[in-house]
Amino acid sequence: MKIAVPLESDPVEARVALTPETAKRFIGLGAEVVVQKGAGALSRIPDEAYEKAGATIAKDAKVTFTGADVVLKVRRPNADELKAIKKGTLVVATMDPFGHEDDVKAMAEAGITAVTMDFMPRITRAQVMDVLSSQANLAGYQAVIDAAGLFDRAMPMMMTAAGTVSAAKVFVMGAGVAGLQAIATAKRLGAIVSATDVRPAAKEQVESLGGRFIAVEDEEFKEAETAGGYAKEMSDDYKKKQAELVASHIAKQDIVITTALIPGRPAPKLVTKEMLASMQPGSIVIDLAVERGGNVEGAVAGEVATVGDVKVAGYLNVPGRIAATASLLYAKNLYAFVETLIDKEAKALAVDWEDELVKATVLTRDGSIVHPAFAG
Amino acid sequence: MKIAVPLESDPVEARVALTPETAKRFIGLGAEVVVQKGAGALSRIPDEAYEKAGATIAKDAKVTFTGADVVLKVRRPNADELKAIKKGTLVVATMDPFGHEDDVKAMAEAGITAVTMDFMPRITRAQVMDVLSSQANLAGYQAVIDAAGLFDRAMPMMMTAAGTVSAAKVFVMGAGVAGLQAIATAKRLGAIVSATDVRPAAKEQVESLGGRFIAVEDEEFKEAETAGGYAKEMSDDYKKKQAELVASHIAKQDIVITTALIPGRPAPKLVTKEMLASMQPGSIVIDLAVERGGNVEGAVAGEVATVGDVKVAGYLNVPGRIAATASLLYAKNLYAFVETLIDKEAKALAVDWEDELVKATVLTRDGSIVHPAFAG
Repeated sequence: MKIAVPLESDPVEARVALTPETAKRFIGLGAEVVVQKGAGALSRIPDEAYEKAGATIAKDAKVTFTGADVVLKVRRPNADELKAIKKGTLVVATMDPFGHEDDVKAMAEAGITAVTMDFMPRITRAQVMDVLSSQANLAGYQAVIDAAGLFDRAMPMMMTAAGTVSAAKVFVMGAGVAGLQAIATAKRLGAIVSATDVRPAAKEQVESLGGRFIAVEDEEFKEAETAGGYAKEMSDDYKKKQAELVASHIAKQDIVITTALIPGRPAPKLVTKEMLASMQPGSIVIDLAVERGGNVEGAVAGEVATVGDVKVAGYLNVPGRIAATASLLYAKNLYAFVETLIDKEAKALAVDWEDELVKATVLTRDGSIVHPAFAG
Repeated sequence: MKIAVPLESDPVEARVALTPETAKRFIGLGAEVVVQKGAGALSRIPDEAYEKAGATIAKDAKVTFTGADVVLKVRRPNADELKAIKKGTLVVATMDPFGHEDDVKAMAEAGITAVTMDFMPRITRAQVMDVLSSQANLAGYQAVIDAAGLFDRAMPMMMTAAGTVSAAKVFVMGAGVAGLQAIATAKRLGAIVSATDVRPAAKEQVESLGGRFIAVEDEEFKEAETAGGYAKEMSDDYKKKQAELVASHIAKQDIVITTALIPGRPAPKLVTKEMLASMQPGSIVIDLAVERGGNVEGAVAGEVATVGDVKVAGYLNVPGRIAATASLLYAKNLYAFVETLIDKEAKALAVDWEDELVKATVLTRDGSIVHPAFAG
């Protein structure tokens, strides 16, 4: 059983799907592990570290893929890679298939078994395999580091001989995994932190991190708050009042971090140009949803745009900006899943196609698209 | 009494010597305040904010300087500015005169009264005027923000479903004002922080911020520690043991921040290329002394140099990287000093040339160099 890990072909991708630690563990399961030269360089893993763990270094992608039973990647394979990977190979990556249906088709035609980690069900057993959470957590951290770097003031309150500097005001929109880590990191740096989320149940989580929850707390909110995580859609009247509250709140913020994503759909627009214009000059907005169209009007993917007097950062691949840690966790997520596909006695792949994790994540197999969201 | 504040002529200088708040206070003392158009723009202060405070906006440097009794600046005036400033004008700035003796001479020849804020005595009365401390404090903060931005891993320990990420190890060399703020900021971000200083008395301050003090704690150290802030020079034998300890400590660090300056002399070299080579790939070194020749071998002023597998950041004007806060405190420092030079009844300049703060800071007057460190 050969497991192959290429250098990622996308130039913005600094992560890698294997660490020396997971290499060692795969080898412990009886696998032969081959890593392309330089695959870990941007995640601070030298080839020698893989070799020390027992892996072999291959000089290029072609040699890496030759004879592989399993390919571990960060991003879905491109056309060149599909040519080099033999039919029937299990390719595990974050395929990001929504909106890229042609690429899913190409993977089916190439005959690979494409497994996408971003479809992993959010159940207890699969928490350790949850790449969306592990990477979103780091994106939330990095968003605050990026904001602090762009910001022309200090984050914490500082009491100095020359006078007191007031703390920065940070507002986090969307209190999922990324948003909660952004709240925690901004609090660490001493900012005054507030947050909002369409789920009233998020209030408790935001407050447990020391953030203030921004919401119109009327009767409708209170009912929804106690109804659990995925509450019913709020009324139009409520949404209007909430939007007004958020708009007036943004005008008083130094830093806004947006993290709102809807699976399989474009990101919702949360911050309008009018809201940006209401902010003080020099304020910073970090749009973590820019790869999905963005939460912020005027955000440009891959750039720090200046909209009026506000800087709007639309960094691509934010977890990749903190690649060493991101690869560490991503590789652990992959190991935890792939390990379940291996028969430890036979030391060979033995995929249970009826396992719910497998069914949820396999996109293509034996030349066909098999995932219900794309088949047909 | 006209107080003039130009746009700083140095392109790397984002700070400004006046804020709307200090403008208002000068005007309250009977001054007319003129600010050059755009002077505050890079510190997030629009012209309108100065106008609202009662200041007048002048279209260029020449108009700004015309008829001024006092000029407030961040950096010492260049040749063009000296031509535009009339003889006898009091020019208050951070003149940074050591190593720039020709410029001191030029200021004398221009007939201005050059007052340098960086010579302010470190006595209680002058704490509020201490620009070195106010700016070093912010440099220490920004050094950690810059390090976190360059670093490819998370600073805090993170306990996630995929496993635990260990905290970054940060070592601060020099526990003065900048070093102590760097320690505090790195602690805030969750790093494991250690520090060293040639003054054994710094141990207590480092530990009070939660940092570990790195020193050979032998009998000689313990005697020096209790001898107070400015202890005697340590023995050569002690220095050698301490250097070995520091070298072995650096090899285990992720981030090193150096802050060691000796007034009027080049910065001491603390980190050699051998020490950089001993660090893990991807480690970060921030050299806050780069403008004085640097504490780190291979540091390049104004650049992030790659030395082996380590990034060595030699950012210029680090307080200017956080210009809005830096200007706020700098302007307060200047106001606190200049206010003491004004006769509130007569609403005019009335400098007491025998005042110890004035004697310590005036470099040139009536066409001559008058400061004992440069006269002769």
